[in-house]
Amino acid sequence: MNTTARLHGVIPYLASPVDAEGEIDREALARLVEHLIARGVHGLAPLGSTGEFAYLDLRRREAVVQTVVEAAAGRVPVIAGVASTTTADAVAQARRWRMLGADGILAILEAYFPLDEAGVVDYFSAVASATDAPVTLYTNPNFQRSDLSLAAIGELSRHPNIHYIKDASTNTGRLLSILNRTEGRLGVFAASSHITTAVMLIGGLGWMAGPSCVAPEASVRLYELCRAGSWAEAMELQRDLWSLNEAFARYNLAAAIKAGLRLQGFDCGDPLPPQRRLTVEEIAQVEAALKRIGAL
Amino acid sequence: MNTTARLHGVIPYLASPVDAEGEIDREALARLVEHLIARGVHGLAPLGSTGEFAYLDLRRREAVVQTVVEAAAGRVPVIAGVASTTTADAVAQARRWRMLGADGILAILEAYFPLDEAGVVDYFSAVASATDAPVTLYTNPNFQRSDLSLAAIGELSRHPNIHYIKDASTNTGRLLSILNRTEGRLGVFAASSHITTAVMLIGGLGWMAGPSCVAPEASVRLYELCRAGSWAEAMELQRDLWSLNEAFARYNLAAAIKAGLRLQGFDCGDPLPPQRRLTVEEIAQVEAALKRIGAL
Amino acid sequence: MNTTARLHGVIPYLASPVDAEGEIDREALARLVEHLIARGVHGLAPLGSTGEFAYLDLRRREAVVQTVVEAAAGRVPVIAGVASTTTADAVAQARRWRMLGADGILAILEAYFPLDEAGVVDYFSAVASATDAPVTLYTNPNFQRSDLSLAAIGELSRHPNIHYIKDASTNTGRLLSILNRTEGRLGVFAASSHITTAVMLIGGLGWMAGPSCVAPEASVRLYELCRAGSWAEAMELQRDLWSLNEAFARYNLAAAIKAGLRLQGFDCGDPLPPQRRLTVEEIAQVEAALKRIGAL
Amino acid sequence: MNTTARLHGVIPYLASPVDAEGEIDREALARLVEHLIARGVHGLAPLGSTGEFAYLDLRRREAVVQTVVEAAAGRVPVIAGVASTTTADAVAQARRWRMLGADGILAILEAYFPLDEAGVVDYFSAVASATDAPVTLYTNPNFQRSDLSLAAIGELSRHPNIHYIKDASTNTGRLLSILNRTEGRLGVFAASSHITTAVMLIGGLGWMAGPSCVAPEASVRLYELCRAGSWAEAMELQRDLWSLNEAFARYNLAAAIKAGLRLQGFDCGDPLPPQRRLTVEEIAQVEAALKRIGAL
Repeated sequence: MNTTARLHGVIPYLASPVDAEGEIDREALARLVEHLIARGVHGLAPLGSTGEFAYLDLRRREAVVQTVVEAAAGRVPVIAGVASTTTADAVAQARRWRMLGADGILAILEAYFPLDEAGVVDYFSAVASATDAPVTLYTNPNFQRSDLSLAAIGELSRHPNIHYIKDASTNTGRLLSILNRTEGRLGVFAASSHITTAVMLIGGLGWMAGPSCVAPEASVRLYELCRAGSWAEAMELQRDLWSLNEAFARYNLAAAIKAGLRLQGFDCGDPLPPQRRLTVEEIAQVEAALKRIGAL
Repeated sequence: MNTTARLHGVIPYLASPVDAEGEIDREALARLVEHLIARGVHGLAPLGSTGEFAYLDLRRREAVVQTVVEAAAGRVPVIAGVASTTTADAVAQARRWRMLGADGILAILEAYFPLDEAGVVDYFSAVASATDAPVTLYTNPNFQRSDLSLAAIGELSRHPNIHYIKDASTNTGRLLSILNRTEGRLGVFAASSHITTAVMLIGGLGWMAGPSCVAPEASVRLYELCRAGSWAEAMELQRDLWSLNEAFARYNLAAAIKAGLRLQGFDCGDPLPPQRRLTVEEIAQVEAALKRIGAL
Repeated sequence: MNTTARLHGVIPYLASPVDAEGEIDREALARLVEHLIARGVHGLAPLGSTGEFAYLDLRRREAVVQTVVEAAAGRVPVIAGVASTTTADAVAQARRWRMLGADGILAILEAYFPLDEAGVVDYFSAVASATDAPVTLYTNPNFQRSDLSLAAIGELSRHPNIHYIKDASTNTGRLLSILNRTEGRLGVFAASSHITTAVMLIGGLGWMAGPSCVAPEASVRLYELCRAGSWAEAMELQRDLWSLNEAFARYNLAAAIKAGLRLQGFDCGDPLPPQRRLTVEEIAQVEAALKRIGAL
Repeated sequence: MNTTARLHGVIPYLASPVDAEGEIDREALARLVEHLIARGVHGLAPLGSTGEFAYLDLRRREAVVQTVVEAAAGRVPVIAGVASTTTADAVAQARRWRMLGADGILAILEAYFPLDEAGVVDYFSAVASATDAPVTLYTNPNFQRSDLSLAAIGELSRHPNIHYIKDASTNTGRLLSILNRTEGRLGVFAASSHITTAVMLIGGLGWMAGPSCVAPEASVRLYELCRAGSWAEAMELQRDLWSLNEAFARYNLAAAIKAGLRLQGFDCGDPLPPQRRLTVEEIAQVEAALKRIGAL
């Protein structure tokens, strides 16, 4: 994979299929990768929030990255999640994922005690300096205990290896603030908490998001409409896709994606306990949302 | 004013000019109204957050509404803020503002003790039933202790007199959820916490916002670009305007607007103590933001 | 009333009785005052949170203070709540309550926009300088938008007229931090969110709390046990009284107190809408808690 | 160790000493254990928050437990922290710690996605059922993303293996609510966020806390004063000890404890990056707090 090409487009956060013992189901994961590439996605992001990185030990995370890289076989870039509370562990993950063939790193900071800004910058800088793979900063204030301030993002955007940011807040204006402040040094990706069409309008490169895992075709179509500047048509499709995002925001994201994938014929097992699978009623809601966009 | 026409466009939240004794400076307020109408704004919203409603007693609020209605003289609709902790007081305000000639009501709920959803719905319904003026729901989770859930908004959207909502969260996706859920029953206005171009793209009617008070021309130009579907051009202007919103979000909003107006030759006094006026350094930042958009 | 004596003991936050039109029921209020003094309380605090200050306009607040002062007739000190968003209004209230005969001021800051520490200190200092009545700082982070930092409390404790603090956080350790930091300059009163026995143990002067309104006898007994150092006996009584606090924390505090008073034969009307009265089931819980402590 | 004796008294959360490579410094840890037992502590709690469990991988956690168990040699009970996002991993840790000789388990739930109450109860029940060692529930709302509701605590208190709870909120009243609700089924331990004397007064068994690591003698003396009912004397000592808790609450807890231990001659290395060690000024504050209580 030529890592100098700029990341863009629809890059689904992959669910992490597991068997009854909680081991990674490599076959199911490879099938999912094949399916998504066939639907036209522009990249793959294993070990994001949707991929339950927080519930997988290092051995399982490694199995995920290895499987996705092999299944993708260089057809689309693989952006693998690195997440830890310690710098040393995050650096080791980044190096390992790169050795396994990952094209890029999605860098996540897990905090327990509050961390000052200098500590946050140190962590991400160390991860970015650990390999030659381009780094995407990942910030999710809903689930992570630390957040990246605009000042910290501005500073990190000057690191030669930090090229992108994926923001999972619900604050779309923050993305425009980031674009204004980093003046082209950081490409911005939306999460499912943003209206992706709006993020494309303000200059985003695409989105990294769980729902694209179950709606790859509609997502790619939406991306192309945005790229073509067909904003009115894009918004029509966006309105239906938003219902899907809403349905998934209502539940445990991994449980919702796994339920959706199962409805589409991809059995990825259940989210790891004590997370629970969706109830019959909740599955019906996911089903309705998928049907509305023709994904079922 | 024909109140059956649909509200739309740029509706600035007016600063509330005060003299050294804290009394409403009616002359300054009338001048501001004249100035804004001359710049093409589509309506006027006295007694929003920017208008320091929370710092003005009933007598002063009445002076504000009366002055604005008289100065506007029917040229643009006046949407006056009603805010209280009690239903009885809010109803009385709504009736009084209507008698004074307000064309619409901006309904704000002030809570002290937490309120259940039924109580929230009761409050807004009572205000909306108190007059024949169309009501705009106003929700500002940053400053108000209560928030309107999507379910409450859905229920309120069926009230024959509730026509609009102005949302001052930073969550732009929430606006799309509101539009989807209320199916045309509620028109949506952005606040300065949203990228207004993005809100126009998803189907918004315009924005009610403090910064438009100091940037009426750029705001109207942006609105027209959005209406014409000139999204790329709109975004170019939006990027500069966003710096203004950022500058104002950084400070006490009333203090920032009053500083900006003073720079433009409209002395509106200071925000009411214990709020403080901006420092020299802060004023310099407001000045820079205004210059960037040619508003100074 | 000799205001140089130090405040201490059980100082109930008074409910504000209203009639069907929302006017203050002076007769019911006077009866309540008489009843509480007869039960041995050491002071009376009208216009606290429990007294629905946030729901009463100035005219009604004045009626409350006047009625309580007259009914108390100097037998116990009356500490009247002053609350506003503006310094000027708070100062005016303080002067007015003093003219009406209040022995002390309970100073509350209502904020809408966030306020920096200097603004907070200015507000309370201005209130304290407005009269010769001793001032109790009141901080309730659950319901108020501003909070008093330890640094601000330290600074305010040096004002010659600020003598007490009543803290309604749930953080009992914070009270010890205040005592340590102010070195005897501030007397500390607990709220119903603290275990009052624990606050007495660490050096508190007593408590200002809503539940004492419906449990004056048990409260006074508990106070006397604490004063006598009979901690084990105090804790036995405290355990039962705590259930009452828990029941009241579960509901709108004013609604719960008014329900309890009605059960005891003091009809104080309902909390002002859109607050709602308790349901039958909720009243049954209040009843059970009152019976457990022999207050019914 | 006879695990049927009831846990009680001062049970310090142990710092986790590391060398320059981040490996557990077993020798330093063994010395610390020896020192604390010689000072009279009633138990030892490795792998609490202070012990940086969130920054240590499984191999290092195992080294900690093994070292502490061996060094304690049955003289005092060892309560080892189990913490994970998944039930399966937590169960495996509990079994492993028990095999290594831990006398009890401190059960911590790490959440990423929000978890419903049933999931929370499932997690703790599974850990408690995994071994015969008595379990202490640990809840720390400041640092953990999940919290234990009173209802969940009530349900868990009926598990035959769950005997204690250690609460690190600042809400002391919550402890009385727990005691009232669990009616003797759960013993309560304070954290350093509570005034320990107050918790002893309401019926607590003791405290599990980081500061006891650097103040074992004063902690044991305080415990004995409380047990003897010498409340006034206890409070005198408590006031000084509280300054220590305040100093430690101000900083990263692990950094503060490690700084304090170094001042006392126990070099435990630095907190794991990106956590940073204290600055010279911060160390001076820790030093002052330790001197005030004669711990230096």
